[in-house]
Amino acid sequence: MSEEGKTRPPEWHPSDADKSKFAGEVMAGKVEASPAIKVVRKPRRRPLDVDELYEGILAGNRTALARGITCVESEAPRHRVIARELLRRCLPHSGDSVRIGITGVPGAGKSQFLECIGKMLCDADKRVAILAVDPSSSVTGGSILGDKTRMENLCRDERAFIRPSPAGKTLGGVAAKTRESIILCEAAGYKVIFVETVGVGQSEVAVRSMVDFFLLLQLSGGGDELQGIKKGVIEMADAIVVNKSDGDNVQRTKVARGEYARVLHHLHPYTEGWEPQALCCSGLHGTGVWEIWEMVLKFCDKLKAENRFEDIRSKQNAKWFRSLLEQRVLEAFYSKQKESGLFLQLESDVTNGRIPVIEAVDQLLG
Amino acid sequence: MSEEGKTRPPEWHPSDADKSKFAGEVMAGKVEASPAIKVVRKPRRRPLDVDELYEGILAGNRTALARGITCVESEAPRHRVIARELLRRCLPHSGDSVRIGITGVPGAGKSQFLECIGKMLCDADKRVAILAVDPSSSVTGGSILGDKTRMENLCRDERAFIRPSPAGKTLGGVAAKTRESIILCEAAGYKVIFVETVGVGQSEVAVRSMVDFFLLLQLSGGGDELQGIKKGVIEMADAIVVNKSDGDNVQRTKVARGEYARVLHHLHPYTEGWEPQALCCSGLHGTGVWEIWEMVLKFCDKLKAENRFEDIRSKQNAKWFRSLLEQRVLEAFYSKQKESGLFLQLESDVTNGRIPVIEAVDQLLG
Repeated sequence: MSEEGKTRPPEWHPSDADKSKFAGEVMAGKVEASPAIKVVRKPRRRPLDVDELYEGILAGNRTALARGITCVESEAPRHRVIARELLRRCLPHSGDSVRIGITGVPGAGKSQFLECIGKMLCDADKRVAILAVDPSSSVTGGSILGDKTRMENLCRDERAFIRPSPAGKTLGGVAAKTRESIILCEAAGYKVIFVETVGVGQSEVAVRSMVDFFLLLQLSGGGDELQGIKKGVIEMADAIVVNKSDGDNVQRTKVARGEYARVLHHLHPYTEGWEPQALCCSGLHGTGVWEIWEMVLKFCDKLKAENRFEDIRSKQNAKWFRSLLEQRVLEAFYSKQKESGLFLQLESDVTNGRIPVIEAVDQLLG
Repeated sequence: MSEEGKTRPPEWHPSDADKSKFAGEVMAGKVEASPAIKVVRKPRRRPLDVDELYEGILAGNRTALARGITCVESEAPRHRVIARELLRRCLPHSGDSVRIGITGVPGAGKSQFLECIGKMLCDADKRVAILAVDPSSSVTGGSILGDKTRMENLCRDERAFIRPSPAGKTLGGVAAKTRESIILCEAAGYKVIFVETVGVGQSEVAVRSMVDFFLLLQLSGGGDELQGIKKGVIEMADAIVVNKSDGDNVQRTKVARGEYARVLHHLHPYTEGWEPQALCCSGLHGTGVWEIWEMVLKFCDKLKAENRFEDIRSKQNAKWFRSLLEQRVLEAFYSKQKESGLFLQLESDVTNGRIPVIEAVDQLLG
């Protein structure tokens, strides 16, 4: 039911002419066949095997993890069977991590910040995984390449694992796959999982519901610091970090930090008992970044001391279960409705005030 | 699915002894039989008749309107048939009004404010209806009597119509009935509809989705002005009004007003293109109350000039249709699930991390 789903342009499919032209170019050595093309050529890649994937993941093998996630993300029935089994086996080995959601408008410096904190944590012997939830990127593909390029340093670090947003038509679908990827990453021994999203839509709600700590990355602006951030995102944050606190910008970010602190003080904390913090950092120079990590640790320690850390995760699971279930039930309902014209007729009648809502519902459900 | 539904005490029913004691007292002239008692005595009251109700409502008869709403609120099958027909007939005569939602924590002075603005509008020849959405009051009955007593002056005014919150188990049910009551009130010629709610829960979301303008009534407090208000309520407001700006309190309310203005400035407006306002008023003395009405008019004029007033209402209708439909579909699903123990077993397995969510969902839906 996502809005994105409705407004998306139809997916591009290459025509036969395109395909043969491309194949010709590959043959002529003009272009290199992309990995996506290689998947199609079965003989080049061994088929996915649950035992192998499972053992590879538990051993912390990045390639096995990547292939496992590909399997989880796949819609192909045979992959789904493998994914199901893989998840079942990995689940008991998951959970020993801290899951951190990161959001912020484009340009807030999320990749720079993630690269910086990721590198710091890797150097401190913490294995870091970075996943993304961004339904829009699965259409444009833009931010995937962008992030890969921008996190170049971290990409090369063997202790880090970076994975772009899964493709998918609905936010719910994209988010479900990321949740499952978290389980595989944890089973592979990643102790810090960052889930990145874009700060401009409903994806924050999805990410908030799968992480322990939620961090909003902001910039200092001309007094209108909170502009550009969607309703409700601030209220879900456990911390707001004003990024790019470097050079001429230090004073401005401090002012913005104060402003955020004041606003946060007025809102109910999302995580009960935790007063959301406002901090500054420079993703470029690394100043303030270690303090952010210490704040996350303090947050986890507090919740664990109060026996609430696992409790919150259990509740997230229960909620996810209900939400996935309801989504499927409603999908089935609407897809049945589409066959008859009655639904659309009644919807239009109701929208234009021609018949009362209750009557339309009764007519439809009999 | 409402939380309120689960924690409610069972409804009180008078025992036979209670009834005969009360009947004895009525007979002895000690107490007057309340209108509610009269409903029980069928011979005293003519059966509900659609034609009569419809004509009475269109003629602006308050008794007909009250009986029509009772019919809409009733769960009895024969009443539902009448209600459906009544709504169908009244719908074309509805819509010519401004619908204003009012919320605020208990003690913010909602009744006092409503009485004040209601009286002002009546004196300015506007007929005013006040409806309530408060799922909790249908249990305790407390606020019903409370409001009736507190709005004593307005109650006596023939140009005003005051109706307590309908009884109902779920917020969705209560809200649906209030939406339908709005239609009847408008058909009866009420040009200003206030929908009051309590400021402490999900009911704000329900009210927000049925009104044009949403007003949050606040008090000045010791710096923590926004405490006590649930997450998100501020972000739904088209205006925050600091009440009780009288006597020693004037200065403090001005400070609070400034604080609210700052916070509002930082949030995305709920109604696109309308910057939410912060104002002061005294529901006791009436100062600032007319300014609030002028603000509401300005809001309506702006939206009408931009051809968005009706458009927003159409979207509200479409959303209500979908939401009522989905609620019914899910209700049917869960009530079927309750018969088998599988759902509860799977829910518990998922919550405790014994099986992956996706697997539980697949097991349940086959």
